[in-house]
Amino acid sequence: MTNARVAVIGASGYGGLQTLRLLHQHPGLDVSFLGGERSSGKRWSELVPFLPLAGDPVVQTPDPDAIAALADFAVLSLPNGLAAGLVPGLLERGVRVVDLSADYRYGSLAQWQAVYAAEAGQVARSDADLCAEAVYGLPEWQGEAITRARLVAAPGCFPTASLLGLLPFLKQGLIDTTGIVIDAKTGTSGGGRAAKEHLLLAEAAEAVSPYGVVGHRHTSEIEQMAGRVAGREIQLQFTPHLMPMVRGLLATIYCRLRDPGLTADDCSTLLASAYRQAPCVGVLPVGTYPSTKWVRQTNRALLSVQLDPRTDQLIVMAAIDNLVKGQAGQAVQCLNLMAGLDSTTGLPLLPFYP
Amino acid sequence: MTNARVAVIGASGYGGLQTLRLLHQHPGLDVSFLGGERSSGKRWSELVPFLPLAGDPVVQTPDPDAIAALADFAVLSLPNGLAAGLVPGLLERGVRVVDLSADYRYGSLAQWQAVYAAEAGQVARSDADLCAEAVYGLPEWQGEAITRARLVAAPGCFPTASLLGLLPFLKQGLIDTTGIVIDAKTGTSGGGRAAKEHLLLAEAAEAVSPYGVVGHRHTSEIEQMAGRVAGREIQLQFTPHLMPMVRGLLATIYCRLRDPGLTADDCSTLLASAYRQAPCVGVLPVGTYPSTKWVRQTNRALLSVQLDPRTDQLIVMAAIDNLVKGQAGQAVQCLNLMAGLDSTTGLPLLPFYP
Amino acid sequence: MTNARVAVIGASGYGGLQTLRLLHQHPGLDVSFLGGERSSGKRWSELVPFLPLAGDPVVQTPDPDAIAALADFAVLSLPNGLAAGLVPGLLERGVRVVDLSADYRYGSLAQWQAVYAAEAGQVARSDADLCAEAVYGLPEWQGEAITRARLVAAPGCFPTASLLGLLPFLKQGLIDTTGIVIDAKTGTSGGGRAAKEHLLLAEAAEAVSPYGVVGHRHTSEIEQMAGRVAGREIQLQFTPHLMPMVRGLLATIYCRLRDPGLTADDCSTLLASAYRQAPCVGVLPVGTYPSTKWVRQTNRALLSVQLDPRTDQLIVMAAIDNLVKGQAGQAVQCLNLMAGLDSTTGLPLLPFYP
Amino acid sequence: MTNARVAVIGASGYGGLQTLRLLHQHPGLDVSFLGGERSSGKRWSELVPFLPLAGDPVVQTPDPDAIAALADFAVLSLPNGLAAGLVPGLLERGVRVVDLSADYRYGSLAQWQAVYAAEAGQVARSDADLCAEAVYGLPEWQGEAITRARLVAAPGCFPTASLLGLLPFLKQGLIDTTGIVIDAKTGTSGGGRAAKEHLLLAEAAEAVSPYGVVGHRHTSEIEQMAGRVAGREIQLQFTPHLMPMVRGLLATIYCRLRDPGLTADDCSTLLASAYRQAPCVGVLPVGTYPSTKWVRQTNRALLSVQLDPRTDQLIVMAAIDNLVKGQAGQAVQCLNLMAGLDSTTGLPLLPFYP
Repeated sequence: MTNARVAVIGASGYGGLQTLRLLHQHPGLDVSFLGGERSSGKRWSELVPFLPLAGDPVVQTPDPDAIAALADFAVLSLPNGLAAGLVPGLLERGVRVVDLSADYRYGSLAQWQAVYAAEAGQVARSDADLCAEAVYGLPEWQGEAITRARLVAAPGCFPTASLLGLLPFLKQGLIDTTGIVIDAKTGTSGGGRAAKEHLLLAEAAEAVSPYGVVGHRHTSEIEQMAGRVAGREIQLQFTPHLMPMVRGLLATIYCRLRDPGLTADDCSTLLASAYRQAPCVGVLPVGTYPSTKWVRQTNRALLSVQLDPRTDQLIVMAAIDNLVKGQAGQAVQCLNLMAGLDSTTGLPLLPFYP
Repeated sequence: MTNARVAVIGASGYGGLQTLRLLHQHPGLDVSFLGGERSSGKRWSELVPFLPLAGDPVVQTPDPDAIAALADFAVLSLPNGLAAGLVPGLLERGVRVVDLSADYRYGSLAQWQAVYAAEAGQVARSDADLCAEAVYGLPEWQGEAITRARLVAAPGCFPTASLLGLLPFLKQGLIDTTGIVIDAKTGTSGGGRAAKEHLLLAEAAEAVSPYGVVGHRHTSEIEQMAGRVAGREIQLQFTPHLMPMVRGLLATIYCRLRDPGLTADDCSTLLASAYRQAPCVGVLPVGTYPSTKWVRQTNRALLSVQLDPRTDQLIVMAAIDNLVKGQAGQAVQCLNLMAGLDSTTGLPLLPFYP
Repeated sequence: MTNARVAVIGASGYGGLQTLRLLHQHPGLDVSFLGGERSSGKRWSELVPFLPLAGDPVVQTPDPDAIAALADFAVLSLPNGLAAGLVPGLLERGVRVVDLSADYRYGSLAQWQAVYAAEAGQVARSDADLCAEAVYGLPEWQGEAITRARLVAAPGCFPTASLLGLLPFLKQGLIDTTGIVIDAKTGTSGGGRAAKEHLLLAEAAEAVSPYGVVGHRHTSEIEQMAGRVAGREIQLQFTPHLMPMVRGLLATIYCRLRDPGLTADDCSTLLASAYRQAPCVGVLPVGTYPSTKWVRQTNRALLSVQLDPRTDQLIVMAAIDNLVKGQAGQAVQCLNLMAGLDSTTGLPLLPFYP
Repeated sequence: MTNARVAVIGASGYGGLQTLRLLHQHPGLDVSFLGGERSSGKRWSELVPFLPLAGDPVVQTPDPDAIAALADFAVLSLPNGLAAGLVPGLLERGVRVVDLSADYRYGSLAQWQAVYAAEAGQVARSDADLCAEAVYGLPEWQGEAITRARLVAAPGCFPTASLLGLLPFLKQGLIDTTGIVIDAKTGTSGGGRAAKEHLLLAEAAEAVSPYGVVGHRHTSEIEQMAGRVAGREIQLQFTPHLMPMVRGLLATIYCRLRDPGLTADDCSTLLASAYRQAPCVGVLPVGTYPSTKWVRQTNRALLSVQLDPRTDQLIVMAAIDNLVKGQAGQAVQCLNLMAGLDSTTGLPLLPFYP
């Protein structure tokens, strides 16, 4: 049986680099096309001397015909708004797509246009049908749909960690759907590879700060999926913080138990049950709390819960690597499902500690 | 007028080092005694080659008579439980004390014994009267009492940031006293200078993790002072996280406005009014969020608020340097008041950025 | 064909953790015995919650009989001086050994006793014959001998990088054998997992400093192997520096060309030729300099050269991951050869950048 | 006596920010003019919310007449090539200048044009006389000349550390003038505040790499001053490395003693003598090596020497803060001398450790 062929578009950004690294020696998927906008026409080894690729290819302009000629699947790692220009053409030509941007994360195009107003102002989109068709690529909750999907929207890094922690409790109706607070912490690689002053080491090292307080775009993405699972609209508080580290993401989730009779162990058992069939999610014993380092450069999420019997507050902690389980690794996990492979094929699940 | 004389006990730990650095060239306070337990008998330059002190003194055993002969004030930077062995003798001999440990932070000795049970098991204390007498050393809220105090208990680092953010709203009765969540982040120097595996750079760098989830000792310290100002008992959620950086502390505080008519600007104005006479506290404009780097190695706290009109959640952010405003700087601020000096004398308020 | 069985002794230190991670899912080697001194009797998941092992084994006391009953090979990751107590018994029982300590790195026991005088004072050794027999485990230069060896001494991290850069030029007689300067930089994980004050994040972050200036133990280890290849005794300058990072090691080597007619490109070509058959060594183009990040968590060494035509100084740069190619990865590379496998089996060669 | 008035041009870059912070509350110098190119017209608090300045000034276009009307001195922190456009006009109007750029570091304009060829290609300069007049602003070696100078060229960060370590030995003729190797390490703030991909935290953290190997511009700057003091032309090897930290610079200098009879203590004594009158330079005992952290955010250089009796190699280590003693602090030290003040006025000499 031959390997499926994958095009990677946006190859020299962090999303692209992770995807290429994960597909290197992947037993069921081959990279057959390397595409990029700014890097088009350049030889790979000049762009990225530290990640040699077989044949040292030249980066191509991401033309749908050229891609379709060479690839069964495409992973798009492009700025928000740009994927939407490429996806319809790829789907028409039979290329199945995993998109790392936010372009197809909302079921409603109008909502995307509201939340990503700046990008929407620069791109005319009329693909509301594709927004409705696209599958939200969280394999632990959407595995069946992903397997059959033509178009998968890989979740944002913050939604991935937040939803993995929240959804089991929302699904069982165990927590109040109001008053949920998600305090999230991410390494600076989440801001991408383009140079920005506030992401310089001299600025971001030895510093911790909140950003996007109230109204960060990932709020609505979390609320959409949380609402679907809870069966009712949810409004919650989401506050990201920038950490002085390269990679890693922790979501600390505060919510209130509806049934004060439950113990922390009960809640931990519930989490473990929810993810019994999920090889990329681990649940730690009560009293052991996840470090982002424990999942660094892996596609694993580590969850833990704790409960304050005085206040009935449930605290759910979720740690992931923002570029792997929070981005490219999750995309490969989706690709695996789409290609009929085991979902963890080629994905590292254990860290090189420290 | 002659300078007041200060003994620094526990000189080679982080609290002692910061205190000595702050008192170096202080215009109104002179270090007259250098005390330590483990370092007793050693010449200073061998212990700390990078912070030369005039005369290169030998570290002394902290004997109350010896201290009283040379000092008007003492700053104690000792492990929890040890200060209580020294304080009564110092007070009897007329030495006024600022204690950096938790020994006198609670009005009730019984509460200290409950919260610091491990230490209480090793030290027999009968100084409930001193617990009751000691002033909680948060100058912005206890300035008058500190000025006259014989014994000041310098607050913990987390309580300092948390209380500076919370108290103005509690005092005005503007927020619900239930459901308060404090998600705090600190650099590793908060764990002290004694070698511990989890604070090694190899372990703590490139890592973020929660610890002490539910029941961290600073919870009760925050609740005590919050309750005093609110005029009612308060139970809140406090979760500290370890950050991959040397110093800096951020508290992100989530609470609910009782009056939904207030705006973020109203809340910011209220904060600014509360701290108009407080030179060590700054309030940032709404939409500008504090970085711990902006207060690094200063005695300044930077506050900011944001409001989610959808949920009426108020988010208060407070950044401090955990070793200065969160520890030794605040101690010097107290000393200044006790010695009749301006509270900011000798204290750096602006950072060397970056 | 069945997999070879490997005992890992000293499992919860950094060397052990890396070895276990590398052997996880290794296609030709299985971990069959987990041994440790301090951790003996403890269940693995309590010691290391982030690296689940199949069956969650209990750590065993490293008894030679027990090891020999279960393993064909043993990797020893023990403090200097302790391996020598275990190795003779293992070899007698037919277990082939890769030792990560310095105990067998010198051909002469007397030299080990001189260089490691502190350890030698605590351990009586009479295994001069094993010192003479042991093979220095640098596969690129000792591949044949390693394949047949009973006992392999894995090189130190600094010697690995230094020798990979130096040996090709020494072998060809192209550089002066006097005046060689090696200025080396390492992450703090090189100091091991035992808690030490100077390796705390609060101490080591935002800091760069030299240590072991003149007389660091690795000097003699480098000189021994350099001398063997050059065919004459060599005395060189080696100065390590501690870097504020977890892992990575860079050696910047300064030496003088004997033939001023050579160009940087000539020297680069020579390096490339020397390592044409070495899949774990890459040579960068002249003008591209290696970052330790480019080899992070890989078993690859990246080399580059530059030449100053004014001074005939040749500068050779070598970057490795100190815990992989500089320790456990190299050990697995040796194991692979000893077990008749391809030397890179199971070893990561490309980084997850950034 | 009134304070001297100082204009700071290029205020929001790292050089400007440090200068402003150092002049804040300086007892003898007042900032009277705030100038910038890109930031012109903006209110200070919007640019830099964390460093409030009295009156919250608007940044001005750096017009010579406007500056001369308000300032006795000007500190220029502008990109290379731009200072030369401003300096002649300032000097004509009687404003004495300390320039942080490289524009006046060479006695010869032609050499500047050769070394800074890119900048020279964009700026026509005819101020060879000013190049000849300008004083190289290393106060420990040029104190008298600086006191009287109209125009001071503040040294580069690498030359400052390198020369402080080398010059005493060159002046006494104790070392070979050939074969000198300077291996230098710097934090990323040395690359300035403008956003560049390779200085992103995600790129530069957990990474060490050489750059500018052979031919870095600071080589010729070091050689010029070393040659002047040695009384003969010097060609040396200088290799900078980028460190994963914000600030701090270490130069490790390798050279060969001409007289093998000298001991490390002799060399240390010589260093101490050379800097007996230099309050910003400290010499550590033999065997104690400087950490950049020991001088962080101070204007102090810490030196140490070690000697290998086997090879007669002398190793001189010099640590500074690249933005203070390596840039803005040294500029203020020069300003102090020019204004008739004690050279250390207002300059921090001790660190806030850790």
